[in-house]
Amino acid sequence: MPNEFEYIAWLRSQTPADARVRIGPGDDCAALAPPARELLVTTDMLMDGTDFILSEVDPRRVGRKAMAVNLSDIAAMAGIPIAAVVSVALPRPTPPSPLPEGKGEQAREITELEATSADSSFSPFPSGRGDGGVGSSDGPFSSGGVSLPKQLYLGLRDIADAFGVPIVGGDTNTWTNKLVISVTALGEATARGPVRRSGAKPGDWLFVTGPLGGSILGHHLDFTPRVREALLLHEAVELRAMLDISDGLAADLNHICEESKCGAVVVAEAIPISDAARELSRTSGKTPLQHALGDGEDFELVFAVSPTDGTKLLHQPPVPGLAKIGECIEAGLWIEENGERKSLAPTGWVHAL
Amino acid sequence: MPNEFEYIAWLRSQTPADARVRIGPGDDCAALAPPARELLVTTDMLMDGTDFILSEVDPRRVGRKAMAVNLSDIAAMAGIPIAAVVSVALPRPTPPSPLPEGKGEQAREITELEATSADSSFSPFPSGRGDGGVGSSDGPFSSGGVSLPKQLYLGLRDIADAFGVPIVGGDTNTWTNKLVISVTALGEATARGPVRRSGAKPGDWLFVTGPLGGSILGHHLDFTPRVREALLLHEAVELRAMLDISDGLAADLNHICEESKCGAVVVAEAIPISDAARELSRTSGKTPLQHALGDGEDFELVFAVSPTDGTKLLHQPPVPGLAKIGECIEAGLWIEENGERKSLAPTGWVHAL
Repeated sequence: MPNEFEYIAWLRSQTPADARVRIGPGDDCAALAPPARELLVTTDMLMDGTDFILSEVDPRRVGRKAMAVNLSDIAAMAGIPIAAVVSVALPRPTPPSPLPEGKGEQAREITELEATSADSSFSPFPSGRGDGGVGSSDGPFSSGGVSLPKQLYLGLRDIADAFGVPIVGGDTNTWTNKLVISVTALGEATARGPVRRSGAKPGDWLFVTGPLGGSILGHHLDFTPRVREALLLHEAVELRAMLDISDGLAADLNHICEESKCGAVVVAEAIPISDAARELSRTSGKTPLQHALGDGEDFELVFAVSPTDGTKLLHQPPVPGLAKIGECIEAGLWIEENGERKSLAPTGWVHAL
Repeated sequence: MPNEFEYIAWLRSQTPADARVRIGPGDDCAALAPPARELLVTTDMLMDGTDFILSEVDPRRVGRKAMAVNLSDIAAMAGIPIAAVVSVALPRPTPPSPLPEGKGEQAREITELEATSADSSFSPFPSGRGDGGVGSSDGPFSSGGVSLPKQLYLGLRDIADAFGVPIVGGDTNTWTNKLVISVTALGEATARGPVRRSGAKPGDWLFVTGPLGGSILGHHLDFTPRVREALLLHEAVELRAMLDISDGLAADLNHICEESKCGAVVVAEAIPISDAARELSRTSGKTPLQHALGDGEDFELVFAVSPTDGTKLLHQPPVPGLAKIGECIEAGLWIEENGERKSLAPTGWVHAL
C-alpha cells in the first residue's frame, strides 16, 4: 500500500515544528506543554449531507469548516487556541475486496476488526491497516490529482495555520459510507478567564461582531472564526456573556438569556444584515431580517457588556464591524420594530401582537 | 420536543462534580484546571459496521469501547487520564418530516443547516434543534425503555467513572445513517514523563500485560484499559517504549521497532494466548498462536525495559499477568519456535525458512 505510507510520510512532513508540542503525530498520544491557565476543550462533528454536501463542494472547504467551527467555540470563550486533533471516517467507493481463502465464518468480522485497529497509530489521517480501500486506485488515498484526505487536511491546515494551531494527532478510518469529520480543539484562557454564557445582567448592552443571515450561500463554509476579535474585545472591556452564533441570533440570544437568567430585547433596525440574507430573501419567502434572526452558522460573536463598556466600544471600537443590537432586560425575548415591541421566538419567528 | 430537553436535563444531572472541572457541559467549551505536567491528547472514532455491529450488541458496550480505546492510548503513554469529550452521529430511523410550507427551493439545505447548528451547545448528547427525528417516538431519544444515546452514555460513563474521568462535553448529532462515535481523551504525564514508542534498545526485554488473540469474540468490546497497570509499571521500572496492542502483537511490535530503530525476537512458547484465541482457532483455520500474533484489539500493553528492570519485574511483578515474550535486537522482526528463528511479518504471518 505505497499510497498509504506515502500519505503518512507526507502528513508528517507537513506538520510544522511548534515549541508547545512535545510529542506530535505518530505515537499513542500527542503531548503538549502544560497550559499556564485554564484549559479549554471543545469538539464538533460534521457529517456529509448535514453540515456540507460533499458532492457539491471542494473538500478543502469542508476541512476549513471543520476546523473553523471548533476554533469559533474557543473564540466564544475568548480563549487562545493551542492545538487540535482530527478524526475522520472517509468514504470508500468500493466494498471490501473478497476475503482471502481459508478464513472461517468469523472472517467477515475479523477483517472488519483488523481494519478498525488501524486507529491506534496516532497521526492525522493514518489510514487503516487491513483496509481494503486504502491504496486502491479509486480509494480516498488515490493520488490522481489531490486526494480527498489531502484536500481535507489542507483545508484544516488553512484555518489552523491562520491561528497558529498545530494539528497534533488524529484518527483516520475509511468506510463505505458518508464522510464524517470530528475535530477537538484545545485552548487556553487568558488572564481575564473564560467568558461564559451566564454572566449577562439586565441593563447590559448586546453587540454582534458582524452581519448575519444567509450563511447557507457559502459563509457557513468560508467564515473566519472570531478568535482575534474575541481576544481584542476581552482586552478592551469586561465581556459578561458571549457565544458564537451557530443556531441563529434569536436562538443563541435565548441561550444567553437562559444561562444568565435574564431577558433581551433587540432592535430590528440595528441588526446588521448580510448581503447573503438579502439575496436569499429574494427566493426564500422570508425577509432579510428573518434570515438574520433565524438562520444558523453565522459564527459571529454575540456578547453582553455594561453600558459603560458598551459606550466605550461605540466610541473606540477595538475591532471593525461591531453593532449594538439591543439590551438585556429582566425577562422574555423581544424585538422592537418601528418602535413596537413584539415577542421573538428562539427560532427567529416574530409574533405579531 | 420534551424528550430532547428531558434528555439534556438528565445528562446534566448525571454529570458528577469534579474539582478539576471549572466549566462542565453546557457552554461553548469546557474549562479544566491546567494540568501540572505535560498534557496528553488522543482521539479515536468508532463506526457501526467496522468497530462494532450495532444490531448485534448492547449499545452500552459500544459506549464502553469508545471510552476504553481512548483511555488505552493514555495508558500506552503511562499517563493519568483527566477528562474526555464525546461527539456522536446517532442513527435516525426516519427521514426528516416534510418541510413546512412557504420555504423556497433552498429550504432543504437550510433545514439541514439548522439541524447542524445544534452542535454548538456543548453538552454530551445535546440533540439537534430543528432535527426532525429528535423527540419523535421512534427516534434515538425515544424513551421506550432506555434509548440508544442513554445507553451509549451509560457505557461511556461505566469506563470513565472506573478511572475517575469526567466527561466534560461533546457534540450530538443525528442523521439517517450509521452510528459514529468519536471520543477525545485528555491526560497528564506523571513526573517520569510520557512513555513513547521510540526508546527501546537492542538487549531490552519485551513484556506484555496479558493474554492475546481472539478479541473478536467479545474482549474488543469489554476490555479494561491498562491505565492502572501502566502507572504501576512506570513507578516500578523505567519503561523505555510502550504501546497498547490494537493492531496485533506482531504489527505493534513492528511499530516499536520502527520508531526505536531496532529489531525484536519473540519466543512463541512465551506468548500468553487467550482462551478466546484457542476457541476461535477451532473454526478459523488458524492456530491459537497465529491469533495471538495477528489479531487486533487486545489492548494489553507491550513494553521494553532493561534486562535489570526486566529481572526485577519477573521477581516482584507490580501487576498480575506479566509475561516476558522476547527481546529487542539490532534489526528485523523474528519469532523463535522450538528453538528455531523464523521471520515474523507485521501481519502476524510466520515465514517458514
